[in-house]
Amino acid sequence: MVAYVCITMKILLIGASGTLGKRLNAALSPDHEVITAGRSSGDYHVDIRSEDSIRNMFGQCPQPEALICAAASGDMDNFATLTQDALLDNMRGKLLGQISLVLVGQHFLPPGGSFTLTSGVFADEPHIGVTGGGVISGALHSFVYAAALELSPRMRVNAVSPGMLQDSAPQYGALFPGLPAISMDAVVHAYRQTLFTDINGQVLRLYR
Amino acid sequence: MVAYVCITMKILLIGASGTLGKRLNAALSPDHEVITAGRSSGDYHVDIRSEDSIRNMFGQCPQPEALICAAASGDMDNFATLTQDALLDNMRGKLLGQISLVLVGQHFLPPGGSFTLTSGVFADEPHIGVTGGGVISGALHSFVYAAALELSPRMRVNAVSPGMLQDSAPQYGALFPGLPAISMDAVVHAYRQTLFTDINGQVLRLYR
Repeated sequence: MVAYVCITMKILLIGASGTLGKRLNAALSPDHEVITAGRSSGDYHVDIRSEDSIRNMFGQCPQPEALICAAASGDMDNFATLTQDALLDNMRGKLLGQISLVLVGQHFLPPGGSFTLTSGVFADEPHIGVTGGGVISGALHSFVYAAALELSPRMRVNAVSPGMLQDSAPQYGALFPGLPAISMDAVVHAYRQTLFTDINGQVLRLYR
Repeated sequence: MVAYVCITMKILLIGASGTLGKRLNAALSPDHEVITAGRSSGDYHVDIRSEDSIRNMFGQCPQPEALICAAASGDMDNFATLTQDALLDNMRGKLLGQISLVLVGQHFLPPGGSFTLTSGVFADEPHIGVTGGGVISGALHSFVYAAALELSPRMRVNAVSPGMLQDSAPQYGALFPGLPAISMDAVVHAYRQTLFTDINGQVLRLYR
């Protein structure tokens, strides 16, 4: 007989006030110590576009065993007029910021620590108006492969790549008629898998 | 009976003086009009990190029907000390520069025009010391999917993603013992496929 032992984990949740972050916080808080952080809300304030801000956050908050970044999606763009600067602006938080959380966080998490980043379906399935979102997520996927290898066996790094979140569908669904809504339970479950199993270097794709 | 008719194509080759560019130039020049461009050599000078420089190049050179960017690989990095700024520096030419060639070039190539970008194996198969190379190539792959959709049916966009080039193996092979050398003929053939067939939004992976 296998008994399921629930061990309380200290989880630093970045972006806890967003659509996805709220769900993750609600799902994990009953059994775990969730430390929240965000640009303008949460237990700790952090602007993930700045390595200094990330370093300050880690210096102040209790040492987390796991970090989840539930970053917001990239902005939409118009391909005919898209510029390098606009693309780079789009990349700063969602891509470079998430990467910086791992690059800085590798020096703060304990052995066995786990990073879970958030990408999205546009990495693999393009749609009109989200070139930046695709570039950001495709880059994140390859970053996860690289970071997992570099940090193994000391720490784990994974990503959850959802399609259209059920909670976002009322607002954004009409823009992407080809994308089915993905249940929030399924998405939350994917984050649980990255926290509570030994998977490493995985991109958990939830597209349909 | 199908007769193969070789139609001369006007091809703008960026990075013509590099390891791969030299081979592509030699292979394509006998049957096609190859216009070469590079930072410090070639028929036209261009710094692909600058949209203005790219725009100047297109303004000066004859209108190409196809553009190939045979960009150099990204720099190597040390994950424990890697910073956002260093990663971004690495991304400027190889990622943002190649993206800019398409964003600017979409306004200069004629209908039916073709873009071929160059990525690499680290997008899909991580190795120690090439996190930047992975991020760059993974981002490029998703960019190709997006750009092909956005520009269809007006223009085509593809990428060739080689592993260790045979011509680079003497210099770099020892750093990546897991990577077999890929014959230059096979790599050149992949570029031919992007030029002379109707494939669009494809990443041609040559890994073993």
